[in-house]
This record gives sequence, C-alpha cells and structure tokens, in this order.
Amino acid sequence: MVESVKKSEISDSAIARLPLYLRALNHFNELGRDTITSHNLGQYLGIGPAQIRKDLSHFGRSGKQGTGYPILPLIHQLNHVLHINSEWRVAVIGTGDLGTALANYDGFEHRGFRICWLFDTDTDRIGQQVGGLTVRRMDILEKILCQNQVKIAMIAVPAPHAQQVADRVVACGIKAILNYAPISLQVPEHVKVQYIDPIIHLQSMTYYLSHEKATALEVAT
Amino acid sequence: MVESVKKSEISDSAIARLPLYLRALNHFNELGRDTITSHNLGQYLGIGPAQIRKDLSHFGRSGKQGTGYPILPLIHQLNHVLHINSEWRVAVIGTGDLGTALANYDGFEHRGFRICWLFDTDTDRIGQQVGGLTVRRMDILEKILCQNQVKIAMIAVPAPHAQQVADRVVACGIKAILNYAPISLQVPEHVKVQYIDPIIHLQSMTYYLSHEKATALEVAT
Repeated sequence: MVESVKKSEISDSAIARLPLYLRALNHFNELGRDTITSHNLGQYLGIGPAQIRKDLSHFGRSGKQGTGYPILPLIHQLNHVLHINSEWRVAVIGTGDLGTALANYDGFEHRGFRICWLFDTDTDRIGQQVGGLTVRRMDILEKILCQNQVKIAMIAVPAPHAQQVADRVVACGIKAILNYAPISLQVPEHVKVQYIDPIIHLQSMTYYLSHEKATALEVAT
Repeated sequence: MVESVKKSEISDSAIARLPLYLRALNHFNELGRDTITSHNLGQYLGIGPAQIRKDLSHFGRSGKQGTGYPILPLIHQLNHVLHINSEWRVAVIGTGDLGTALANYDGFEHRGFRICWLFDTDTDRIGQQVGGLTVRRMDILEKILCQNQVKIAMIAVPAPHAQQVADRVVACGIKAILNYAPISLQVPEHVKVQYIDPIIHLQSMTYYLSHEKATALEVAT
C-alpha cells in the first residue's frame, strides 16, 4: 500500500506535516487514547481536519465516522512511511554551544535517530567527551562517514565554515543535512537540506505582530 | 505602499519566505552586490524565480529586466514589512544546554532581536551569568514581562513543563512564542507559535531517503 505511492504524487508540504501528526499521535498514545478524529487532531495541531484527512488518505488511511483513526496502527504506518522504524546514525559537525546541546539532547533515539559521531576543528575540544561521545578531529571526517555509510549530518559550525563542511559531507555520500548555520547551503539536487535558524522563525512572526499593532492603533483612533 | 497590503491577501507561506529572502539579500549585500535577479536569488535559495517575483509583488516590488531587484532598498523594505527595523526584546525561559546556546548566540541583535531576560526554576542556575545576563527566578516572570511589555518569548524548558510556561507568558501579553520543547502548544488564536524541533526536520527528510533507497534497489534488481 505504502510502496505503491509515488513520491511525486505527494507534496513536500504534506510530507512535512507527517512528522507533526506522528508526534501528536505518540502524545495521545501516551495518554492512553486508542483513537482520534481528524477534528481533534487538527484542533491539537492547529491544522484543518480536511487537510489531515487528505494527507493521510495518500497512505490509504481514512478515519472512521465518529471514532476517527486508530492511533497505534497509524503510528506504525507513519514510522514506516517516514522510514524511522529503524534508527539512522547521525554525525554532528561543530561542538560549540549548539552542537553540545544537540549531543546532550535525549530525544533523538526514540524518534528514529542516534547521534554517533561529533567532529570539531578546535584542539581544545578534540578528545573531550560530550554527551557520551568523543569529539573527533575534522581530518578523519571523510574516513568515518564513508566507512559507516552515514547518510545524515547536522552542521552546527559558524556560518563562514558551513558551506565548506557541507561540500565535504556531500562528497562522502551524505544525503540529508540539518543546517544550523544561518546561511543557505548550495548542494546537489539529490541532497535534502533543512534549516534551523531561530531568527527566520522569529521574523515570520513579527510580520503579524506589526499588523496587530497597526490594527490596534486604527481601532484606538 | 506596504501599509495598503491587507494581511489576509498574503499567504502564511509567502510571509515565511520573506525572512529567507532578507537573509539572502543581506548575504549578497555583504559581498558587495547592488542588484540581484529573481533567477539568481531563486538559484541560491532553491526557490522558483516565479514564486519570488509573486511574493515580492505583494509589496509593490518588481525586478527590472536584466538587472533584477536593487538589493539595499529591498532589504530596507523587508525590514520594514517584517517590523524588524526596530529591535524586539525577547525573554528566554529555560537555561539548560539549549537556553544557554540561545543566550550565547550573537546573531540575534543584528537581525531585529535582543535577548534581554533569562528565567529558570533551577536554584543552581538562578543568579548565574549566562551570555552576559543574570538568570532570574520564575516567580518574577509575570512582573518582568508585564512591566516591560515583552511580546516575544522563547520556551526552552523540558516538554512536560512547556504548556504551563506558555500559559503563563500568554497571560502576560506575549504574542509570539518560539517553542523548542517537542510538543504542540495550545494557545489562544491571537498568539503566534513557531516550533523548532530538529527531529521533525530530520523525519521530513528521511521520507525521501527511504524512497531513494527503494529506487536504488529497483534499479539494481
């Protein structure tokens, strides 16, 4: 069923919502719930129920009138669709404040990922233990990534170094990059990049704050 | 010109792209460029040039045939549209690894934001200096947010505490929350929330990795 879905049939934005559904379903499963309606799931996530029904219908799922979706089978299916029913081993490049926070974060393993390697150029950090891992020298990056067929890297180096690091990991066969440096990376088309830049998120909210302010002023005058 | 645009006329996804345009324009400005075409901007960002032209046309901007958009005026306009030509003062709740990384991050100020307050419940952290700021007790949260009319908060507490913190900051007039806890927050409709959860980003990439693997196998057999 899942395998019959063609990649091109499902939009990137629909795919980006699946991890949100999965996180919410795990939440309700932990609360002891067996089923959930698209209405309740939508209310919890701030997403329209019609959108949720449409997204899940791509994978042959339709909620039952009244009770909705069975939670546990849907969790299993989404784990399968997102290919996280087995664990991905991830390399982190850069062990400053952010890389350290990532290495210490305990939320990865139970959601499909395990940070296995840390790299840095800073001789003070190389050899140190961070989050139970030894920080390694950057000059063995290629060897380790290739030997272990690592497919996912997180880049947490300063912006001026991020592109060079990206070039190096892509040359080693990395297919997905989570980039914390506040720059756009240039990578070949087959490599996926996701960006985490808090300022981008903040700026997309202040747009609405300014409009709210303007509205408030208009009402007041 | 900007003021004449109604909020409802522009999609949320178009607004979410504006900070990316701004970051890229600042990048090219620093390289000494005066103008940029939608084609080059799109190539750099991995966004279609037609999309960029459409988004910017909402604000009365159209690129000149051949040379494209003048960079500096467009930066000024986007700063104005996103309401970041003045600085927003931000409170961070939670000073674990992630909150500490945020407090130490030097990229906020030049892009419209300044972290001014840190809060924690941990008595070992309260009173300590982090990123040049003193960590404050949570029981003075309300007083400080109200007195200073703070509008933006970043939540970096463990998931089980995040909703309670969100309720408290919303009650103090916070209008925008950047949430690092891996849960969906329930907030009134007038409050904007953006989420930073690395696993959500990673999971939306593994969907494509799995399909690539399947394709590779099909080709091989």
